[in-house]
Amino acid sequence: MKKINIGLLGLGQIGTGLYEILAAKKGLFACQLGVSFELKRIAEKYPERNKKVRPPKKIMTKDAFSVVRDPSIDVVVELIGGTTVARQLIKEALKNGKHVVTANKALLAEHGDEIFALAHRMKRWLCFEASVGGGIPCIKALREGLAANRIDSVHAIINGTTNYILTQMTAKGMSFAEALAGAQKQGYAEANPFLDVSGHDAAHKLAILARFAFGGKVKFKDIYCEGITEISSDDIAFAKEFGYTIKLLAIAKKSGSGMEARVQPTLLPNSHILASVNGSFNAILMRGDEVGDVLFYGRGAGPHPTASAVIADLVDIAKAGAEGPAEDRFMVRALGKTIPVKSIFSIQSRYYLRFNVIDRPSVLAGISKILGKHGISISDVMQRERSVGRVVPLILLTHATHEKDLRAAVREIDGLSCIKGKTQVIRIEEA
Amino acid sequence: MKKINIGLLGLGQIGTGLYEILAAKKGLFACQLGVSFELKRIAEKYPERNKKVRPPKKIMTKDAFSVVRDPSIDVVVELIGGTTVARQLIKEALKNGKHVVTANKALLAEHGDEIFALAHRMKRWLCFEASVGGGIPCIKALREGLAANRIDSVHAIINGTTNYILTQMTAKGMSFAEALAGAQKQGYAEANPFLDVSGHDAAHKLAILARFAFGGKVKFKDIYCEGITEISSDDIAFAKEFGYTIKLLAIAKKSGSGMEARVQPTLLPNSHILASVNGSFNAILMRGDEVGDVLFYGRGAGPHPTASAVIADLVDIAKAGAEGPAEDRFMVRALGKTIPVKSIFSIQSRYYLRFNVIDRPSVLAGISKILGKHGISISDVMQRERSVGRVVPLILLTHATHEKDLRAAVREIDGLSCIKGKTQVIRIEEA
Repeated sequence: MKKINIGLLGLGQIGTGLYEILAAKKGLFACQLGVSFELKRIAEKYPERNKKVRPPKKIMTKDAFSVVRDPSIDVVVELIGGTTVARQLIKEALKNGKHVVTANKALLAEHGDEIFALAHRMKRWLCFEASVGGGIPCIKALREGLAANRIDSVHAIINGTTNYILTQMTAKGMSFAEALAGAQKQGYAEANPFLDVSGHDAAHKLAILARFAFGGKVKFKDIYCEGITEISSDDIAFAKEFGYTIKLLAIAKKSGSGMEARVQPTLLPNSHILASVNGSFNAILMRGDEVGDVLFYGRGAGPHPTASAVIADLVDIAKAGAEGPAEDRFMVRALGKTIPVKSIFSIQSRYYLRFNVIDRPSVLAGISKILGKHGISISDVMQRERSVGRVVPLILLTHATHEKDLRAAVREIDGLSCIKGKTQVIRIEEA
Repeated sequence: MKKINIGLLGLGQIGTGLYEILAAKKGLFACQLGVSFELKRIAEKYPERNKKVRPPKKIMTKDAFSVVRDPSIDVVVELIGGTTVARQLIKEALKNGKHVVTANKALLAEHGDEIFALAHRMKRWLCFEASVGGGIPCIKALREGLAANRIDSVHAIINGTTNYILTQMTAKGMSFAEALAGAQKQGYAEANPFLDVSGHDAAHKLAILARFAFGGKVKFKDIYCEGITEISSDDIAFAKEFGYTIKLLAIAKKSGSGMEARVQPTLLPNSHILASVNGSFNAILMRGDEVGDVLFYGRGAGPHPTASAVIADLVDIAKAGAEGPAEDRFMVRALGKTIPVKSIFSIQSRYYLRFNVIDRPSVLAGISKILGKHGISISDVMQRERSVGRVVPLILLTHATHEKDLRAAVREIDGLSCIKGKTQVIRIEEA
């Protein structure tokens, strides 16, 4: 029986989930996996806030650094989050020869170079399945299941809050504000929803996925990021009429010697498998050169799903043996050359454009003339409401074109006297 | 650099895919995985039939037994298929101390007890990712990614041929025969499609999934199996009107100390994620007690996707070390007590019933009276075509009821003078 002594940092929601599972399934893990997980130390600054579990007092401490330095600890599980103390703690843990399991996407996205390199130098396991897609074993798939493949692209719904909000807007015709309020009430969105609705959380996860999918360093700040705050229920309804669903996608595509990497609201054909991923579910679609499209779907958050991923990492560490990796090629690849991210201006895409126009005869002619001048051709037009002299929405879908040209054209069109208010621009992905 | 000497049995489609990838990516695997795969011997009875690859003559043989006995071979990859010679070859390989990788679902479903036990006794790896879901790493997920979970149920679309046929029938209103002919033309169905359309292929894969999901032996012959040959485009259209899609599902659910296990055409709500799995794609949905629903989606067949799974197994074997498992708990569990399969008569389900009735006033009353007598309550009724005195379809959906009662009721109803032809019965799954 392999015995793993665990030091847990953070007894918040996920920490509590982990505590519960390790307590409830101790016998099961021993019998079915041949592993005995011993929760030796728990660091938590505010233990009195936890109403769900009461670990023995003697294993609790408020001093997280004492845990990462404790010689009896084999693996440190970091569930504090954030990029300040957590960063110091993980570094200190690695330097003290501990393996580390973490769910901290912000830290790995913003300081991955430092953390992964240190783990590699110290020959320790640094496992992070829980950092992307909660309980979905997508990192393991990249690391092992798809080992025969070069990954060409990743399209992912990796923020449950925004997917829940968009699903509610789509199903019930709600506004963003209404759907956000509902999500907060249901516990799917935090009181301060910025990280989620701005797309930043998804961008953090995308930085990790792209790094390990393509093999190389990724500069987090180069990932272009648009959130869902400007999406209206009208956009969702118009998209539907064209056969599209709007989702917040994290997209990374190999492109020449670099890649495209962005988080954006996206029109997806209804028949696309990602268009059927609803509610707070996440899904990661990867395209491998041998396997084609593979998709991994499940709960991207929540204490028990996330703890499920943490435990999968712990099991892997236990099986690999306490001595650590002689050479972790997966990590070595991810520490390779920086993969340059193409500027958003140089990408190509199809676009959904919603102009707010004064309804008069020459409007469409004027707009299409400017689009044509910039080399942009229109694939679909829709103007439903007719109300001469009033402001009405005019929807155009374009064929594939350069973002740079699109932006220049929209800027010019927005200067026309018939255009009122901001023009909505949403990218379209076909496959 | 770890060097793995491979003996390949069968240079058919998948074998050729494997050969191509190993040749094309030799350098990549060496650099990115630190593994050198040497294709040392290839056994193929009819090498002249292969028009795609021409391996060096000196590594080719028609005598597969010479390969499994070759002392220089570390891992035997069995891609011959079938349950006769392949069975002997795998046993001989294991007895000769080889690890084995196989895509042979029929063999593992029908002779798993023998093969897995022998692998366990010989302390050899027996890997079979490619046997279920082609390139989708679902066995790895069961084995490792979901290790923290008890699996409660599996719902899977694991036969690409039938999913392609049903998708065509749904999208184009084709009959089964037309869609089958189209699938044969496209290469999605074999000349003799029995194994696929009867549900047997899916049942083979379900036997493997259930064994490793729940941990225990599974008697293949106890898995109830209905194919799609009796599904009409009318059924698909009627189901659609109620908001359902018809899919061939492989279902296994824990039930008391045993399980339900069956392959059946199924009405799934359109909002169900499996209802969006179209064309020849496969998807395996598993419900874990910690993680909730997780789904794995991708190409369930094809030379390169399947070879992708074979290589993932080879990489795992290479990483685990040539000495083999000291103790493979995943295998031990699967060699545990037989999990009894509940008789189909004792399950409960909701049902779609299509009666062919002579259109006269008292018909619905007569049918509902008999259903009521058997304790079956109706949730929905549809009778669109009215044509007094002629035979028209009458569709009923039931609430959950016992199969035994349902069958007794249908038998009784089929005896009514107003019923013409065979009544269609299709089970409904809600979540």
